[in-house]
Formats: sequence, C-alpha cells, structure tokens
Amino acid sequence: MTKVLIDCDPGIDDALALALAAGSSLDLVGITTVGGNVDLSLTTANALALREFLELGDVPVTPGSAGALLRHTVRAGHVHGATGLGDVVLPAPRRGPARGHAVDFIVETLRARPGEITLVAVGPLTNLALAVRREPRVVEWARDLVIMGGSYTRGNHNPAAEFNMLADPEAAAIVFDAGWTVTMLGLDVTLTAVVTTQVLERMEPLGRLAELLVPAAQSYGVVTAESGPAIHDACAVAYVLDPSLFTCVPAVVNVETAGQFTRGMTVTDFKVGDRRANALVATSLDAKGFWDLVIGAYERLAARLG
Amino acid sequence: MTKVLIDCDPGIDDALALALAAGSSLDLVGITTVGGNVDLSLTTANALALREFLELGDVPVTPGSAGALLRHTVRAGHVHGATGLGDVVLPAPRRGPARGHAVDFIVETLRARPGEITLVAVGPLTNLALAVRREPRVVEWARDLVIMGGSYTRGNHNPAAEFNMLADPEAAAIVFDAGWTVTMLGLDVTLTAVVTTQVLERMEPLGRLAELLVPAAQSYGVVTAESGPAIHDACAVAYVLDPSLFTCVPAVVNVETAGQFTRGMTVTDFKVGDRRANALVATSLDAKGFWDLVIGAYERLAARLG
Amino acid sequence: MTKVLIDCDPGIDDALALALAAGSSLDLVGITTVGGNVDLSLTTANALALREFLELGDVPVTPGSAGALLRHTVRAGHVHGATGLGDVVLPAPRRGPARGHAVDFIVETLRARPGEITLVAVGPLTNLALAVRREPRVVEWARDLVIMGGSYTRGNHNPAAEFNMLADPEAAAIVFDAGWTVTMLGLDVTLTAVVTTQVLERMEPLGRLAELLVPAAQSYGVVTAESGPAIHDACAVAYVLDPSLFTCVPAVVNVETAGQFTRGMTVTDFKVGDRRANALVATSLDAKGFWDLVIGAYERLAARLG
Amino acid sequence: MTKVLIDCDPGIDDALALALAAGSSLDLVGITTVGGNVDLSLTTANALALREFLELGDVPVTPGSAGALLRHTVRAGHVHGATGLGDVVLPAPRRGPARGHAVDFIVETLRARPGEITLVAVGPLTNLALAVRREPRVVEWARDLVIMGGSYTRGNHNPAAEFNMLADPEAAAIVFDAGWTVTMLGLDVTLTAVVTTQVLERMEPLGRLAELLVPAAQSYGVVTAESGPAIHDACAVAYVLDPSLFTCVPAVVNVETAGQFTRGMTVTDFKVGDRRANALVATSLDAKGFWDLVIGAYERLAARLG
Repeated sequence: MTKVLIDCDPGIDDALALALAAGSSLDLVGITTVGGNVDLSLTTANALALREFLELGDVPVTPGSAGALLRHTVRAGHVHGATGLGDVVLPAPRRGPARGHAVDFIVETLRARPGEITLVAVGPLTNLALAVRREPRVVEWARDLVIMGGSYTRGNHNPAAEFNMLADPEAAAIVFDAGWTVTMLGLDVTLTAVVTTQVLERMEPLGRLAELLVPAAQSYGVVTAESGPAIHDACAVAYVLDPSLFTCVPAVVNVETAGQFTRGMTVTDFKVGDRRANALVATSLDAKGFWDLVIGAYERLAARLG
Repeated sequence: MTKVLIDCDPGIDDALALALAAGSSLDLVGITTVGGNVDLSLTTANALALREFLELGDVPVTPGSAGALLRHTVRAGHVHGATGLGDVVLPAPRRGPARGHAVDFIVETLRARPGEITLVAVGPLTNLALAVRREPRVVEWARDLVIMGGSYTRGNHNPAAEFNMLADPEAAAIVFDAGWTVTMLGLDVTLTAVVTTQVLERMEPLGRLAELLVPAAQSYGVVTAESGPAIHDACAVAYVLDPSLFTCVPAVVNVETAGQFTRGMTVTDFKVGDRRANALVATSLDAKGFWDLVIGAYERLAARLG
Repeated sequence: MTKVLIDCDPGIDDALALALAAGSSLDLVGITTVGGNVDLSLTTANALALREFLELGDVPVTPGSAGALLRHTVRAGHVHGATGLGDVVLPAPRRGPARGHAVDFIVETLRARPGEITLVAVGPLTNLALAVRREPRVVEWARDLVIMGGSYTRGNHNPAAEFNMLADPEAAAIVFDAGWTVTMLGLDVTLTAVVTTQVLERMEPLGRLAELLVPAAQSYGVVTAESGPAIHDACAVAYVLDPSLFTCVPAVVNVETAGQFTRGMTVTDFKVGDRRANALVATSLDAKGFWDLVIGAYERLAARLG
Repeated sequence: MTKVLIDCDPGIDDALALALAAGSSLDLVGITTVGGNVDLSLTTANALALREFLELGDVPVTPGSAGALLRHTVRAGHVHGATGLGDVVLPAPRRGPARGHAVDFIVETLRARPGEITLVAVGPLTNLALAVRREPRVVEWARDLVIMGGSYTRGNHNPAAEFNMLADPEAAAIVFDAGWTVTMLGLDVTLTAVVTTQVLERMEPLGRLAELLVPAAQSYGVVTAESGPAIHDACAVAYVLDPSLFTCVPAVVNVETAGQFTRGMTVTDFKVGDRRANALVATSLDAKGFWDLVIGAYERLAARLG
C-alpha cells in the first residue's frame, strides 16, 4: 500500500480528497494542516472532524503554518464559507490534534521511512517549504510529491495565479526549486474534474457519507468551474491511486514572486531543452475514469460507514 | 474607405499583412516602422522594398524607434532571418523613407483627421507609447487601435509573454493604460491563422506576388505554430476589413512590467465588473472566412501586379 | 557665454534657479516645463510669469510632459503650495507659451547647435527621456547635462528616493542609461545650500527682486532641510556657472524602477572598476562660495530690475 | 546575568564578538550557526573551534540553515578567507556540534525561559526567520533582539545593501515584520568600530588570546572600513553589555525584497508618525567607550586563558 502524508487546508474539496483517501487502499500516515482556504484554526478543526466522520482511526492530525512565509495572507472564504466546509455540518470532533508542528511531523515522518512516503499537498505550500529549508534531505526522502496547484494557462484567484500558489508564492518557489520533481496537477486538469448531475446522482444514495458529499458538492457550486463544482484536491489523491488517469508532461516551472499582476503564477515551460525538468505537469484527465475511481472509493467507504 | 496607419516591423508576417492591405479596399495613409523582429534599419528597408513591390504608390514610410522605451532590446532574428524577410528576396527600393520621425508622423496624421484613422500596430508598441506621451490627445483622435500582440493564455517568446509585448513591456503598459479601448488580437487567435497546405496551394498561382507569399510562408515555417506558419500580423488588417471574423470579449488587460519570469505578459481579466474594459480581446477566429478574405485580396492584388 | 536650456517645474526653488540664471552671464536659450512639483499647467504658468518678472525677454517657454512616463504621478504640493510658488505672488504673464512641445524644442534646439548647449534639468526627467528616445543623438549633441535630483545616501520624499527621481523613475533610468555622463547634484549637496538668516538678510534689500526671493525662501521653509530652506534647483545653475564650487566623483548610477520601497532611488556605486562611469556625482558644496555667487547674481539682477 | 543566544556565521568579526561575550559577564546559553560569510560547514567548524579556544565550556553549538530562505546564496569569502577566519589558525575542535537544528534550538530555548533570553544575531537572519514562522510566539518569548546588519545610508556588499541583509532579504523582511522591536546596529555605526593602531597595541600583549585577536584584526584589514578593520559583529554583543554606548532612534524599517539594484536594503524611515516603530536604529557609537569595554573584556579573558 502506498504511504501518503496529506498536507491540506480543508476546505470543501480537501474534504472530498480525504474521503477519497479514506475509501481507497492508501496507507494514510498523517494529515498536516495549513492556513489557506480559511484560517489554520478552522482547517485544523475541519481536519479533526473529518478524521472522525471518515473513521480514519488514529491517523495523526498535526497543525502547521498559520500564514504565508513572507508577507501577505490570502483567504478563500468566499468559496469555502465561514467554516471552510460550506453547507456541510459535521459532528464536533472528540479528539484534538497531535502535539508538535506540521513541519517537524513532515521532517520526522520522512526521515523515519526514506523513499517510502508520497507527499500530497493540496493547500498553500508553506509547510513543505519550511520542511525543505529546515531539513533539505526531505527532498531525497520523499518517494514523490504530488500537488494540487498552479496552472500553465490561466489562474482562478486572478487571471495569472491559482489560489494555492498565490497564497504563498515564496513557499511555492522554494518547493519547485528544491531539487525534486513536483507532480503538478493544476487548474488545467482539475477544472475538468466536475461534479456533473450524473455524478451527483451517484453520490446521493451513499447513506451517511452522502451527508458530506452532496452538500459539499452543492455548496462548492458554480464558483469553481462553469460546468459545475470542480473538486480540485481530489485529483491529487486520484493521481496517487492511478497515475494513468492523467497525461503528464515534463516541464520547467518557475513560480513568479516579483510581478505586479503575476505573483504566484506557475510559469510553465514545456521546452525543457538542456535544463532539468523540475515538474511533471498534468495536461489532461480521463474524467470518466476519474469519476469511476472516485465513486468506487466512495461506495466502499459508504459501505463501511453505514 | 477605412483609413489606416500601420506601425510595423517587417518581419515576414508584417509583409503578408501589408500585402493584405494592398489588395484590399483600405486607404493606407502611412507606414511607420519600429525596431522589433529585426533592427530598425532593416524593418525600414523592408517596408520601403515592400511599398514598391506591392505598388503602394507614395504612401509615406517613416522610421521610428530603434529600441525599447526603457532598457532591454529583444530581437526575433531566429524567426525572421538575417534580413527580416526569411527567404524572400525583393528588389532594392529606389526611394527612401519620409523625413521626420514616426512618432511625429503618427501625432500629426491623427491630429489632421481626428476620428478618421484606425491605428494598426503589429510590432512592439514603442512608437505608439511615445506618441501617447508626446500628445495625449492621440487617444481621442484615433478612430480605433488594433494590435497584434499579447495573449491571454500563453506566450511564444517565453511561456508568459508574446514577442511584441516582451520587446517593450513599458510601452505596452503605456498603450493599454492610455484611456482608449485596445483591440487585442493575441496568440490565442493568431496561432489559428495557419498557412495550411491548401492555403499554400491557393497562393502558388499568384504570379509575381507568389514570389513574396510562398517563400514568406515557407521560411516562416514551423517555428510559429505546430500546424504550420501562423501569419499573426495579417490578422490585424483582416480585423479592420471584417471584424465579424473574430469573436472579441471586453476585458481588463494589465501589462506586467515587474515580474522575473513574466515581463511583457498581458494579464487579461475577463471579469471586468465595475472597471472600465480597456481592451476587446479576440477569443476566436473564423479561419475559413479569414483565408477567403486574405486569398481574395491577394488574388486582386496579383491581378494588378501581373 | 555658456548656452543653457533649463527644463523645470516651478516650483519655488526652480524660481530661485531661474533668478540665478537671469542674474548671471548665461545665455538662456529656452525654458521647457514638465509636470512635477505641481501640475504642468501651473509649472508652465509660473515659468511664464517668471520670464516676465525676471525680464528674460523672449526666451521661449515651451510646455512638455504632464505626467510620468509609465504610470504614477507624484506631486509635491505640500512643499510648493497650491500655485507652486508658495507665498510668492507674481503679476500674471501677458504672453503665452511657445507653440510646440518641449520634447521637440529640446531635440531641435540641440540639433541646431550640436556641442554648444548645456541641459539643466531640475524637475522630473520625463521630457529628457522622451527626447532621448525620440532622437538618440541628443546625447551626442548636448554639451553637458546637469541635473538636480537623486541622492547617494537618503531620499526626501521617502527614505530611499529624492522627489524628482521618484516622480518618474523610468524616465530617470532612461536618462542615466543613455550614454552620456550625467552631472548629478543630489540631496547630499543640495541640502547644504540652505538659506540661513544671514543669507536672508542679504536678500531683503534687493528691491523688487526681494518680493520674489524673500517669500520664496520663507514659504519653502522648514520642510526641506532642518537648518532652513535648501534651494536645491539653484545648485544646478550654480554648477554651470562655477563647477569648482562642487566636488564631483565619477560613479555608476542605476535608477531603481522595480523595488517595493525603493522606486526612484539613484543607486550610486563609487567603485566604478572597469565599468563606464555614467555620472559625476557631487559629494560636497562650498556653501560660502555658493552664496557669494548666488547673491552676487541676485544683486546684479536687482540693479537691473529696479 | 543577561542570558544571550548568539546566532552567527564565523566569520572573523563573529570570532571577535564571541571573544567579547566570553570575556564578559553574559550568560551565553547557546550558539547557533548559519551559512553566511562562508558555508555552514565552515561556520559551524569555526564556532566549535572558538568554543574550545575561548573555553566556553559546554555551551551548545547547534548548526542551522545552509542557505537563504528563497533562492540565491551570497558569500563573503573574499573578506573572510577560505576558512572564514582569515589568517587565524585555531586548534581543531575535539567535540562536535549539538544534535538537532538551530531553528528548534532557538524555539525550545526561548520557550523554556520566556522573557529571559536576548537574541543576538550577527549573520544572515535565516534561522531567526524560520524560527518565527515555525513558532510565532518566539516574538513574545524573546527578551530582546539585537542584530548586526543593515544600514540607513549605504550598503557594503553593494551601494544599497549590507551583507547580512543581502544574504537573505526575505528572512530579514520576516524578522523585521514579525511584531517585535529589532535593535539594528547597522554599518552606520559598526563602520566606526575600527581597530586602530592604538587598539591593536592593546591587543598584542594579551598572550594566547592575542593569537586570535591580532591576526583576526589584521587579516580583516582594509576591506571593511577605510580607516581600518571594523569589527561589526562585536557591536551587537557590546550593545547587550552597555546600551548606553549607542544612540538609538525609533524607526520603521522595511526590507526591500523586490528591487533590481536594492534587494536586501533596510529602508529606514525615522518619520514614524502614527506607525509602530519596528526597530531601534543605532545612529552613533561612543567609540572610545566601546573599545574600553571590549579591551577590558579581552583582558579579563586573556587572564583566564593564560
């Protein structure tokens, strides 16, 4: 079983990503949280509530960075609602977070199992950047790094930048420049992972799990893609489960940190030439295969949750 | 007849644009040149040679700015060859350029006929920016401004910037911020204006004109679009002749001047909201209609040239 | 007699600089105006009023650029008052400005007398930058270029930038990078050109001229230097009259255009090494000699004006 | 006794600063190292060698960050020589560094004694920035933060920036923006802490300690100040011992991270107005008092070392 550590900022689509992980055969070794879609206190509270609702057992939830590395903090409460989970209401969690800090958890977890653990990051990259600077060997220790973030065409928070990258451009620059190959699942593909009416119909019969999935999809709504809610973050977990769902192309990605209108843009050059490709950039998604994978996992999880 | 003043840097596709103007019903009131694809001395020499080859009569050719407004000069000799016209060989011109400077010519020509003249700019925007700063009323006097340049998705000279914008980002910023509405025909549409095999077959019988068109298309070659040579600049003239060939959408365009990887990017926001749209951005081109228009004009011109 | 063309934005200290020129042996070939301390309409009106009050005859006053080259306009009305001349009240001018634009006037005046004319610029460098881009040979044609502006230690409008440079950083960058050697009289020396009580006492008996000088010095007041009004712009004229009053050191000056807190800073490197020094930077002023020169000129002028 | 934690990159003047600490009444609770003047491996080795040479007992030496937070690494080997200690040769250390990372050591040491420990940082601020982001409460826990770095007039590594700030501008920005009041001892004062001939004569009789002090001062040499070696870093320790040696003025300091020529500049605004002063900036040093303090401490240490 693939071991994954998920760094996230739940966030509606983070919730759907965690549900996908819960319903699949991944070995989830930890959840770390970061301020992003909403404040760190909320993303941590949501991660704790999801751990119990999804019956993830004693997977540790470790809070991390509250704000961006350098200066400005950007939030997306207009997308994710006041709680960060839209219209989803989960029971309050009974257990609290793990002691310690996400950055240490990431460093020590990778140190303990070099070459085994895949990092999945679906929020701002602050924790990962700090981990890289705190212990540069995490770059060697990670089995893989898969992020939801960026775009090689257009942004969502503004015309140039995707939200997770804009929320901490310097952290993103550190992570992309760290020496590993980042698998970047950007808006170019995640905007095609849309909850259509047909998909929603497959979620509705899923019992207690549907109480999460359906309002999540509905409250995420039209703000994300014209054709319906695009559950960006779930793509990153899906990639770990079945990379063949995606076409990925080697590229040199530079994160703009200096622009007046382009901070946080993932400037993606597919003409790699003699340079090292620091990224594998997804350029297409098999949407049907994706939803079969996702709904299949949700069905397994629903059966377990009752 | 629509009066147009063409500011250009021939340049292979500039040549094809001038040929389109020559074969159509436009009233060409002047050609101004700018350093761009190649140095100003070459773009001016090419404009002069084209004026005679295309039998444009006494349309004045006035040289303008040799380099970018602020600092760095970028050239595209790898695309346009040492002379700027690829494999095209034209007779040496017998007459020289007009006296004076392009910036003055632009200012005075517009001052003389306010509301009548459409500016068509298919090179770096240095001359236009200087005209705007030299005489801000050109913004009111111009009937319209149509540029080939920019992109709302990806660049060509690098992943973020289109060549004409990168060649003088500050000039582009001045022009877009000047108060008029810029019709921007960017790579998003011009890369679909491709000389296909079928198009080439329609050019070959055009007698003496084919001596320009065919080697132009062939030497422009595969560097511009994967599917063949995209004759970017001709789109701007085609737009003046028949705007209905293009879908254009109002947008706020900001030109990045500060980025490390994004200088010259035309950051295009279609969510205009309460702001003034400073641009009409082309989002699609009727390629068949475009080629019918272009080849029709070339045929008329060929008949005239013999 | 040294021929000088003064580009200015009167402005209180500009007025004192013009009075210095009027009272000295310079051959003033023209005054051009630029938006700066206050709006262009006011700087032009003030230049016209000063031409008549100072009895400068038919020296042409030609208006130029209203705002900065690229984007933002900065004004200093808090220093120069609503009219731009503080508490000074001059008779309304009877004659208007010359036809044409300052940029053309600069270009054509230098073209007509290459090697003869010293440019003195005491406002934002917009006109000069446009002249350089409009006709690069002005760099060869100018006998010398002396500016009041910049600093190699600290700014005045903010900690990094002096007002004239901040008001148009891109123009300043163009002028410093144009290939000539700029004599830069920055705050480092101009802040030592202070109207002390003793200096003021020498101005008071100067009859009608005192009606300009005294309220000018008094209303300029404490905002400019802790020890009294520093009449920055007059330094540039004084330098032309007697360069030996200043110690000047060769340097490489780069104008910052990209910083978040440092736009318009004249980054001055005295370690020139193998590079070309693009500036002669004043590092000290003989204040006593300066005031003897200035007051002497004012006395001659006062005798003439009655 | 004031408890101090010294973050440093020895570095010749770092060595002299540690010697000052060793000879004074400070309670040195730890030394952390950072890549700066030379690489981290050397700064750590030098700190270890100095601990033994100066008989600092079991003060832990904990290595930290090897390079800058964001991108570029700048070194000053031309000043500090291949080993980082110029011509100084110290016995190889017998004991190694503490386990763990400087950032954790800083965080945990401050957590354990909130309000008691003064941070003294005399290298790039990478470790401190990471500590602030790893645990924002260090800002409250620190009794004081005294840095050697920056300047409010001119830099040393280039005209705008002092070396420690240039070596990690983003880290410096984080530290200055963190919410505490940084006592900034910049080049403005440290360049007056010069080892004159008289000072050198007072160092020469100091027995074994002179084997460190004299070659340190001599090899540091003329590169630092025109009048002799300026032992910048010792100023920060001297400030903790006797703040009255310095005049300090409240200011708002912004660290430029975006400029083309000004990255790392500490833009210092003494006009605080309604803003919070985030820094106390030293504007003068009592050089005689400084050397009396320093030489006194060296004499006490020399007596102990034999």
